Amino acid sequence: MAEGTRAKPGLEDVVAGESAITLVAGETGGLAYRGFDIAELARSAPYEGVVHLLLYGESPEPEALRATREALGARRELPLALRRAADALPAELPPLDALRSLLSAMSGRAFAYPPTPDQGLELVAKAPALLARTVRRRRGEPPVASDRALGHVANYLYLLTGHRPAERQVRALETYFILLADHGMNASTFALRVVLSTNADLLSGAVAAIAALKGPLHGGAPSKVSDMLDAVGTAGEAQAWVDAALARRERLMGFGHRAYKTEDPRARLLKGVAATTADPARFALAEEVERVALLALARARPGQRLYTNVEFWGAVVLEAAGLERELFTPTFALARTAGWSAHALEQAADNRLIRPDVAYTGPEVGRRWKGGEATGA
Amino acid sequence: MAEGTRAKPGLEDVVAGESAITLVAGETGGLAYRGFDIAELARSAPYEGVVHLLLYGESPEPEALRATREALGARRELPLALRRAADALPAELPPLDALRSLLSAMSGRAFAYPPTPDQGLELVAKAPALLARTVRRRRGEPPVASDRALGHVANYLYLLTGHRPAERQVRALETYFILLADHGMNASTFALRVVLSTNADLLSGAVAAIAALKGPLHGGAPSKVSDMLDAVGTAGEAQAWVDAALARRERLMGFGHRAYKTEDPRARLLKGVAATTADPARFALAEEVERVALLALARARPGQRLYTNVEFWGAVVLEAAGLERELFTPTFALARTAGWSAHALEQAADNRLIRPDVAYTGPEVGRRWKGGEATGA
Repeated sequence: MAEGTRAKPGLEDVVAGESAITLVAGETGGLAYRGFDIAELARSAPYEGVVHLLLYGESPEPEALRATREALGARRELPLALRRAADALPAELPPLDALRSLLSAMSGRAFAYPPTPDQGLELVAKAPALLARTVRRRRGEPPVASDRALGHVANYLYLLTGHRPAERQVRALETYFILLADHGMNASTFALRVVLSTNADLLSGAVAAIAALKGPLHGGAPSKVSDMLDAVGTAGEAQAWVDAALARRERLMGFGHRAYKTEDPRARLLKGVAATTADPARFALAEEVERVALLALARARPGQRLYTNVEFWGAVVLEAAGLERELFTPTFALARTAGWSAHALEQAADNRLIRPDVAYTGPEVGRRWKGGEATGA
Repeated sequence: MAEGTRAKPGLEDVVAGESAITLVAGETGGLAYRGFDIAELARSAPYEGVVHLLLYGESPEPEALRATREALGARRELPLALRRAADALPAELPPLDALRSLLSAMSGRAFAYPPTPDQGLELVAKAPALLARTVRRRRGEPPVASDRALGHVANYLYLLTGHRPAERQVRALETYFILLADHGMNASTFALRVVLSTNADLLSGAVAAIAALKGPLHGGAPSKVSDMLDAVGTAGEAQAWVDAALARRERLMGFGHRAYKTEDPRARLLKGVAATTADPARFALAEEVERVALLALARARPGQRLYTNVEFWGAVVLEAAGLERELFTPTFALARTAGWSAHALEQAADNRLIRPDVAYTGPEVGRRWKGGEATGA
C-alpha cells in the first residue's frame, strides 16, 4: 500500500502510460488514428486500410493494401474444430457472449505471446465469421460461406443474411467500422492491456476486452437508443417525450461521454451517414429527438456539457445497415478488433505488469476463526 | 489527457481504490482475509468457510457454514447445454482456455448484473466441474458425476480421477485453495474490476480474470517450477545447477514477487504442507534448490530482496495432491473464484468506471490518406 497517497477511484486523470495509436482530444472533439483525422479516414479509406494503419503503424501503399485485403480474405474460413464448438454453444447464449466464448476457444499455438500483426489479421478476419455463424444458428438458418470477392464489411453482411448487401448499406457500415476501430484507453482496451501485461496472448486480451464491452457503461447500451426512438414514436412527439423522461429523472440514451466535453466527432460523422442511408422518417425522428434532448439537457443539467455521443447516431446507422439490435454491441466489438490488436502490439513492445495498489479498509488483523472446523471431507 | 502529469507505467504505487477484503502487507510478509491471518485460516478453516468469509464478509457460524457447504454441493451439476458445449470444444484446447470458454458460455440471466453472493457460489461450485469434464475428455475418459458427500476440494479431485482421494491429499490441496483464495489487487482481480466497472456481470469479470491469469507474469508459470526441479534432478546437483543457470543469466522459477519485499507467507505455509505430504525425495530436492537459490540470488542480485514465492512450494503441493502440471494454473483459478467473486461484489457496491488516461505520443494530426481508395466492394 502506498500510504498517504489519495485513492484515484476510476483512475480518472491517472496517466497509465503512453500510446502512439490514437489521439482523443476530448476538449476540442478531435479523434485521429496515427495522425489521420477520422473525418479524413471516413472519407478516403477502406476499413482494411484502417486495419493496416492500426496494425502496422503506416497507411498502406496500394500494393500493401491489396496484400492486407488478401490476407484478411484468406483468413476468414473457420477450421472444423471451431465450427463444431460454435454449433454446440447453448442456444440461448447472447451473440456477444458467443463471440467471446469462441474467441476464447480459438486459443492455441498460432496465438502464442507475443502478439504479431498476423495474429491481429487472424482476429479481425475470423471474428465476423464466428459471430455470424452463431447468429444464423440462433435463427435456425444454415451457415453461409465467406465470399472472397467481397470486402471485409460486405462479407460480414453477406455472412449474416446470405445475400449480397446493397452498396449503400456496405459503405454505411464500413464508415461505422472505421469510426469505431479504436478509441484510445477506454475500459475494454484497458482490460486488454492489463491482460497483455501478464504476457498473456492477444486472444486472451480480446476476450477480456469483450467482457468489458458487455457492460452498459461501456459498449452494452447502443440498442437502447433504438428502443428509445421506438418509444418516442414520431418526431412530433419528441418534445413531450423528452420532457416527461427528464421529469421522471430517466437517463436519455445516447448523450454524454466521459472523454468528450464537446460533441463526439464520431456522432457528427455518423449523423452524416444516417442522413443519406437511414429511412427518412427514422432520420427525422432521431434528428428531432437529438435537437430537443440537447436543449432540454442543457437546461436540466447545466454545466454538465452533455452532447450526442457515438451510440446515438451509431444506432441509427446500424439500423440502416439492416442489423438487429442484439448485434449492435457485437458489431462494435468486430470493428474494435483492429484497435485491440494494435494496443496488444504496443503493450507487448514495451511491457510492464499493470498492477495498481489498493488501500485496505477492512477489519484489523488478528481475528480468531470460530466458524466450522477444518475438514477435508 | 492530463497534461503535465507523469505517466505511471504499470500503475505501480497508484492507489486504484479501497478494499476491505484482503490485506497484503508486502513489507512484513503478512496476508489476511477480512482480518483473519491466512495462517489462522489454513490451520482452522475449511475452504467452504473461506468462501463464506470472502462472499459474505463474516466467518460463518456452524449452521451458516453447513448452508454454504450445501449450496455449493447443490450447484455442482452442469446443465445439459453446458455439458454439450464442454464436449464440443476443440480437443487440443488447453484446460485453462477451456475453463474460460465455458464460463463465458455459462452467461445468462442467472448472472445478470449486479453480482450477488449466490452468483459467487454458482461460479465457485461449477468451475471445478467444467474444468474436470474437459480434462477427462482430453484424456479420453468419460465424465464423473459429483458426489454430494464430498467437500468442495475432495469432490474436485474425485471429478478428475474418478476415485475417492486420500484424506492427506485433500487437506494439502484444501490448504492450497485457502491460501490462494484471494490476494488483493493483482492483475487478474484488477482485470475483473475493470470489467465489472462497466456494469458487466460476474462471469464476464471471471473470464477477464482468467485471461489475465494465463500470462506467465501472473498465473501462468507454476508448472515451470516442477520442470525446473526435474531439470535439477537430485538435491546433490542443486548447487551446480543453480550456479550454472545464473551464469547463463536464466531466471530461477519460483522466486520474487512484486508485492513482497520479504518471504511470501503462502510459500512458508505451503512448505509446511509439502513437508508432510510430498514424496520425501521430492521435498528434499525442493528444499535444497530453495536453499542454494536464495543464497545465490542474494549474491547475484544484491538489493533485490528475492524470496521464495507462492509458485515454488505451490507446485510441490499440487504435485503431491496428484495434479498434472497443465492443471496447476487452472487449479489456481478455481481457488481464486472465491476472491474474484468477493471483488466483484465490492466493485459493484460502490462503482465508478475504471478508465485511466493515456499520454499520446504518436504523429501530429493532419496527415492525408494516400493508401488505397475507399470502397465497399
